[in-house]
Amino acid sequence: MRETQQTGFFQQPAGKQTMAELRREPITGMWVVVTNDHPKGPSDYLSFKPPYGRLAVEGPCPFCPGNEGMTPLETFSLGREKGGWSVRVIPNKFPFFRIEGAFDRRPEGMYDVMEAIGAHEIVVEAPEHDQTLATMDPKQIEKILLAYKGRLIDLEKDQRFQQFLILKNHPGIFNRHPHSHIMAMPVIPKRIDEEIWGTLDYYQRKERCIFCDIIKEEIAVKKRVILETVHFLIFSPFASRYPFETWIVPKVHRPDFHNITEAEAADLSVGLQSLFHCFFELLVDPPYSLTVHTSPVQKRFHRPEYHWHMETRLRIGLREGFEWGTGFFVNPTPPEDAANFIRGMI
Amino acid sequence: MRETQQTGFFQQPAGKQTMAELRREPITGMWVVVTNDHPKGPSDYLSFKPPYGRLAVEGPCPFCPGNEGMTPLETFSLGREKGGWSVRVIPNKFPFFRIEGAFDRRPEGMYDVMEAIGAHEIVVEAPEHDQTLATMDPKQIEKILLAYKGRLIDLEKDQRFQQFLILKNHPGIFNRHPHSHIMAMPVIPKRIDEEIWGTLDYYQRKERCIFCDIIKEEIAVKKRVILETVHFLIFSPFASRYPFETWIVPKVHRPDFHNITEAEAADLSVGLQSLFHCFFELLVDPPYSLTVHTSPVQKRFHRPEYHWHMETRLRIGLREGFEWGTGFFVNPTPPEDAANFIRGMI
Repeated sequence: MRETQQTGFFQQPAGKQTMAELRREPITGMWVVVTNDHPKGPSDYLSFKPPYGRLAVEGPCPFCPGNEGMTPLETFSLGREKGGWSVRVIPNKFPFFRIEGAFDRRPEGMYDVMEAIGAHEIVVEAPEHDQTLATMDPKQIEKILLAYKGRLIDLEKDQRFQQFLILKNHPGIFNRHPHSHIMAMPVIPKRIDEEIWGTLDYYQRKERCIFCDIIKEEIAVKKRVILETVHFLIFSPFASRYPFETWIVPKVHRPDFHNITEAEAADLSVGLQSLFHCFFELLVDPPYSLTVHTSPVQKRFHRPEYHWHMETRLRIGLREGFEWGTGFFVNPTPPEDAANFIRGMI
Repeated sequence: MRETQQTGFFQQPAGKQTMAELRREPITGMWVVVTNDHPKGPSDYLSFKPPYGRLAVEGPCPFCPGNEGMTPLETFSLGREKGGWSVRVIPNKFPFFRIEGAFDRRPEGMYDVMEAIGAHEIVVEAPEHDQTLATMDPKQIEKILLAYKGRLIDLEKDQRFQQFLILKNHPGIFNRHPHSHIMAMPVIPKRIDEEIWGTLDYYQRKERCIFCDIIKEEIAVKKRVILETVHFLIFSPFASRYPFETWIVPKVHRPDFHNITEAEAADLSVGLQSLFHCFFELLVDPPYSLTVHTSPVQKRFHRPEYHWHMETRLRIGLREGFEWGTGFFVNPTPPEDAANFIRGMI
């Protein structure tokens, strides 16, 4: 009985030795378990794939052309000169951070509490209800990037905001119409704070940016690079926390996303379209999240040592319980394999 | 059109103002967004509940009595004197951390890597395939706790291990037979490290344990307390990151789980059974994770200022994309409401 081959988590072919490495994420210092025999490729994730399906639509989509009256007044749009719109930004009707009010920082017993002041806007990424980054024209993705830029430049005027975050979930949780979130926050979230401290710590020791050094290292060793464009490097990070985790980093040191030039935005949009097209083909339209990390804003919080970038996580093969319980990430797809799989689709 | 009531994330009844608080988790300093109008109660989560279903069983269950030959040799068991077993601990056949080998700490280019040395064992919590903490006799839960204790005392002899973690996922990902994981790790995971530094920082300022102070505060204000037993306080933490997040903390300062006494284990098992029975009734057998956080081990890492405890997270209503992208937790069920709902089931 002991030699029977079993499937699943606890059972593996008899005699097969499990190998795992602890890799240190160089910016935050977090250790990640990367299991590098028995690696999982795309087909392993497809077999676990739940039936995502389309969301049942209840009534008209408020993000579709013709239904603009269902949303608050837009804060930004592109393409209005042609009578319609190509990208549209509106306040979220159910925001996590609210623009009105005062902070009212106060104690509650031994605890600390304040109002969640900020901004939370929705970028409607295209008029078409069924578009995705994988199928869009890069020109459309460029417009989305310029909409992000336009809104951040405007929101930065509000001195209460310390940090911007841009987040896209595909498919959207409550509406499949392609959209992303722009948030302006009155505090710096933990993950960004950790990256900033890691960046500063490295800078103090080396007088160099750790992201710039990572770019040089990855271009030199090649094996984790997915795509290098004129202005950006797209690669699987050494201590990838998630299968097929991908970072998109400007090759020249820039702290702030919202100083992106039109040439950089055009270049980035081609890179993003290529990357998400690969994911679409390789993993059959996987669900994903995409985020922009950028330096805190306002003179007193701004960090010129920080290096803005995008990170993407596919929502496949996640071990949320394990990660939550242990604070450890376990990744069964080594980044070298992931980069190789994705490169093969370009 | 603007006044139409919509359902979903972006739409809420017209005229309803969203309120949200930023609450600071006192130990790690993390800010959590708690939305406290429009709060979500149990019925909101039930309507989103995916069909968990039972796992398709492929062949015989290796954790069931009679199939012991399918697993590695047990490292611990209870009840053998009666001919069978009541709780059984075995090495995981597919461990994240492997007991054999050397650390081999080494650079890889600019990065750091080491072998994932450690231990990863499975506690088979009962002979019965379909038991859960919600339906078990507290006497059985007590045996599970004593099995944890027994294994940690043994594993502590291995000087390579810095940190123990105990984790239970319900239902199990690959096998529904009730089981939990014991891990011994060669490094301290990020989450525990953050708790330790928060505890030390507080101790330096106050010369008191922050967990002990939290217990006093919660007993005084009552509104987040779920259950107080002779030795433990079970409550919804002030800055709950997740709906119905619950902490179980010994009322007397103790750094190490594995010094738990038999009287404490008996008392804790009654509390746990009561808590998980409430979850079972309130949220119709929700999936959950339960973990034990305890001080690092070995003289050179041990922290007497730390206070061991259990944390539980229901896997309902999670916004993984948002949390990952922003580093922020957003909780639509204020802990005062959660405690009230759960208390109502006792």
